Amino acid sequence: MTDTAPPRPQPAFVLVRPQMGQNIGAAARAMLNFGLDRMRLVSPRDGWPNPDAVAMASGAGRVLDAAGLHDSTAAAVADCTYVYATTARARGLTKPVFSPEGAMADAVRRTAEGQRVAVLFGPERAGLENDDISIANAIITVPVNPDFPSLNLAQCVLLTGYEWRRQTHDVPAQTTELAGTDWAEAHEIEKLAEHYEERLEEAGFFFPEVKAPHMKRNLRNMWSRMPLTRADVQILHGMMRQVVRWKNRAE
Amino acid sequence: MTDTAPPRPQPAFVLVRPQMGQNIGAAARAMLNFGLDRMRLVSPRDGWPNPDAVAMASGAGRVLDAAGLHDSTAAAVADCTYVYATTARARGLTKPVFSPEGAMADAVRRTAEGQRVAVLFGPERAGLENDDISIANAIITVPVNPDFPSLNLAQCVLLTGYEWRRQTHDVPAQTTELAGTDWAEAHEIEKLAEHYEERLEEAGFFFPEVKAPHMKRNLRNMWSRMPLTRADVQILHGMMRQVVRWKNRAE
Repeated sequence: MTDTAPPRPQPAFVLVRPQMGQNIGAAARAMLNFGLDRMRLVSPRDGWPNPDAVAMASGAGRVLDAAGLHDSTAAAVADCTYVYATTARARGLTKPVFSPEGAMADAVRRTAEGQRVAVLFGPERAGLENDDISIANAIITVPVNPDFPSLNLAQCVLLTGYEWRRQTHDVPAQTTELAGTDWAEAHEIEKLAEHYEERLEEAGFFFPEVKAPHMKRNLRNMWSRMPLTRADVQILHGMMRQVVRWKNRAE
Repeated sequence: MTDTAPPRPQPAFVLVRPQMGQNIGAAARAMLNFGLDRMRLVSPRDGWPNPDAVAMASGAGRVLDAAGLHDSTAAAVADCTYVYATTARARGLTKPVFSPEGAMADAVRRTAEGQRVAVLFGPERAGLENDDISIANAIITVPVNPDFPSLNLAQCVLLTGYEWRRQTHDVPAQTTELAGTDWAEAHEIEKLAEHYEERLEEAGFFFPEVKAPHMKRNLRNMWSRMPLTRADVQILHGMMRQVVRWKNRAE
């Protein structure tokens, strides 16, 4: 059997001889978290369909419904032109070894060329066997802490799916959302600095006089270092005005 | 209480009001997978220590043993100079919003400057509250599928830890491990091509004669496209020699 879904430019994720139904369900969720829905299964230990998988998948049940069921790794990837095998460690095979990032960048390029690619994930306990790996064109190894390298099946699927999404979506490293305001412009910061400087001068803040220029410069530097919005500037003006009113009432 | 571990250049991962002990254990594993071991806990629902957390952490129990326990988010990050809050969605706050990659690149820079940084992770069901987020300097949002954005606590810890390791370790996108051999050099490929060309000429492979130059060029191109090791070249020489011996025996 093969997938009935039409070919789309995304990799098939092939779970090879998975043991626990709940891990198949968790893998389906992890795939859909990153927009992937082409799952293939090779000889799941507890048969198929599996109610534990369905229960764990919850909102990602459609990934399971559309999953292809195969009786060998070779059959599961028969229509693919490039196959990656995820392994925890190097195997003494002469094959390209990719990071998840490098592999998914490579997969994006290949799928854009019209190639069909697949990623093999091994059974929970032992991982892929050498016969599975011999079918693959390349290896993916997650750069884990060598003293504590244990990743479970769904985690390995999650990290690979995350990298697929990173490589296919332009994710800005940093943005700032502005909540109903704009960044203050330099002239607004200048007016704010003048306002504070004038009132603080009156309040006797710049003392002793010999230090006043230095203190004023520090204050100007503080304002310009702060990422202030127009709303922030209004709040700061208002704070000082209110304190002055308070002082005036006390007179 | 604060961590007793000496300050090290790595972020503290702060689990804010976590509910299930097993999720705390899974988070400890996910941290240690990527070499992180500075966990802090804010008011875990079921008290602390928690046997379910210990059972799930298995090999990562030392992360739990060293975890700091705090009764507020403010107390948990009191010694930090920069705090990131993980949230599933934008909150209408004027704060920098980082991808996990961008955030960990920023955290690497800050820790290298001697700053202490922390990452807040919210409770399983509801995520961080606005009061927790108001303590943070910046937001981290994982770029998930907007139609299926559900990441659990340990998965969010895993992806953030993965990005920390990616930003702190030089992980080559692609390498090839050579199993006891070297890449063949051009002169070895040339000899192989000549060997095959000569035998195939004798065998009458290049027919009709008008097509022979084209066929030979195709064969040369095939050899040069293949990523052959010295061991591969010896196998290919041996294959042809054996087929010739077979033919000779048949004569």
